[in-house]
Amino acid sequence: MRQALSLDVGGTKIYSAIINENGEIIGEIEKYSTPKTFLEIKSLFEDIISRHENEVDVIAFATCGAVNNTNDGILGSTGNIAKEYPTLDFKSLSKKPVFVENDANSAAWAEHVLGASKGMPYSVMLTLGTGVGGGIILDNKLYKGKNGAAGEMHFKMRTDKHRKCTCGSWDCFEAYASGTGLKKTAEEITGNPDITSYDVIENKENPDMKKIFDTWQNDILEGIIGLANIFDPDCVVLSGSMAEFVDFEYLEREANKQIVTTPFKVVKACAGNYSGMIGAALLAFEKI
Amino acid sequence: MRQALSLDVGGTKIYSAIINENGEIIGEIEKYSTPKTFLEIKSLFEDIISRHENEVDVIAFATCGAVNNTNDGILGSTGNIAKEYPTLDFKSLSKKPVFVENDANSAAWAEHVLGASKGMPYSVMLTLGTGVGGGIILDNKLYKGKNGAAGEMHFKMRTDKHRKCTCGSWDCFEAYASGTGLKKTAEEITGNPDITSYDVIENKENPDMKKIFDTWQNDILEGIIGLANIFDPDCVVLSGSMAEFVDFEYLEREANKQIVTTPFKVVKACAGNYSGMIGAALLAFEKI
Repeated sequence: MRQALSLDVGGTKIYSAIINENGEIIGEIEKYSTPKTFLEIKSLFEDIISRHENEVDVIAFATCGAVNNTNDGILGSTGNIAKEYPTLDFKSLSKKPVFVENDANSAAWAEHVLGASKGMPYSVMLTLGTGVGGGIILDNKLYKGKNGAAGEMHFKMRTDKHRKCTCGSWDCFEAYASGTGLKKTAEEITGNPDITSYDVIENKENPDMKKIFDTWQNDILEGIIGLANIFDPDCVVLSGSMAEFVDFEYLEREANKQIVTTPFKVVKACAGNYSGMIGAALLAFEKI
Repeated sequence: MRQALSLDVGGTKIYSAIINENGEIIGEIEKYSTPKTFLEIKSLFEDIISRHENEVDVIAFATCGAVNNTNDGILGSTGNIAKEYPTLDFKSLSKKPVFVENDANSAAWAEHVLGASKGMPYSVMLTLGTGVGGGIILDNKLYKGKNGAAGEMHFKMRTDKHRKCTCGSWDCFEAYASGTGLKKTAEEITGNPDITSYDVIENKENPDMKKIFDTWQNDILEGIIGLANIFDPDCVVLSGSMAEFVDFEYLEREANKQIVTTPFKVVKACAGNYSGMIGAALLAFEKI
């Protein structure tokens, strides 16, 4: 059975593992803090790859940033990581084939192959963490758009320039549905700049905190309704740390009441914390 | 060259014409007011088909309502037309093959084959009329979703249940970007329930009317930005009577400033008023 060395590259952490064609992790997972500079990141990649490339058939990257349709480079800029990182020539890192995909796309693919959306040809995954990632599977294929940048969940939740988004524009879904969005919603409702998303989550029995939580969860609901009307999907998958707290039964029931398309499911991701690495490896096996 | 008898079925008008494989209309276009009852609609179809079916290879329908993935029936209910209409057994209407597709999807396909999005694999069309229709072309194929209902432009423009949408939910793009949406925006800004969309369009030099127009056009802009971030398309095509009035250069320039995906075009539909019939015929030729 073929094996991939898979790396998950985020702004804070970098993970690596050997993954087989069943999507199983073989051996230990290596964990690193993401170095500050581009050269240090590149050196870390070279070190990891040099130690493992002889054991594997392909090197797979699940990375922050939009990835092109030839799966060998990053499009434009990415926040939260050394600014030269998008210029990295991934193919030069190894004599073995190198395959690159966006981390949220990779995780969506893992859910499609062996997780919550398995057996469902049409799914949209929303990764609710500090920000919001998106991955779209249509007709059993990862949807990338004309250049590979598709699946950015930056559609508007209001049009009065109320809340700035990390993307530079205003009032995107990410600015409301993320963990950061929950904190902002809490700040707006309470007037307290020091309130955290944990204050809300941990005190949901308190009516004031419940009101904040419900506002945040209903923003997620509204986003899901829009996506269901656009895509007529089999399911919307929610993943990420903030997906632990939402009421899936409520979201599925309320969304299905309001859509004009056909009934769909709202399900929790189940491919685990390393779904990015797993999905990138599984996609890499398909491409080589 | 093959020919289709194509019918465009709306809540107000029904058109029919013979169309060839080049998408050219052969002979006269027949025009009818849409009958009030289901049986009268069915009789009209039978009459039109009986007069032309010997001349053609296929009967094509571009119809209001979502159409299933086998292109032979309507999903769920459709507003504005006899309520039994969706139960119609289209295949029983002719001995020739019968092909059915949603009118907005058909029009988007006509633009893709011979109109404004020709040569572009990824496009989203918005038909801005009394309501808003949508048609999505991905990788040179009409995107239908799991059951055929995809492309409904009912994503939210705000989340505070401000304006009721025709779909029964609140604050959908259709409720703001349509002609009806422009009238509502004008009513809200002026407090005058009798103001019409024409009052706004025809007096755009007046600063008060310009403010209303700009609000409406910016709502369209916000919707386009969301769709561009989701799909990374080559272009967004605007069609329909209300598309006559928007500033395409402004929409394209401003949207491209705000997206996180890659540059795209905003273009005006050019396949004409009968693009629904033409697109349905062209799709029908592909299927038979």
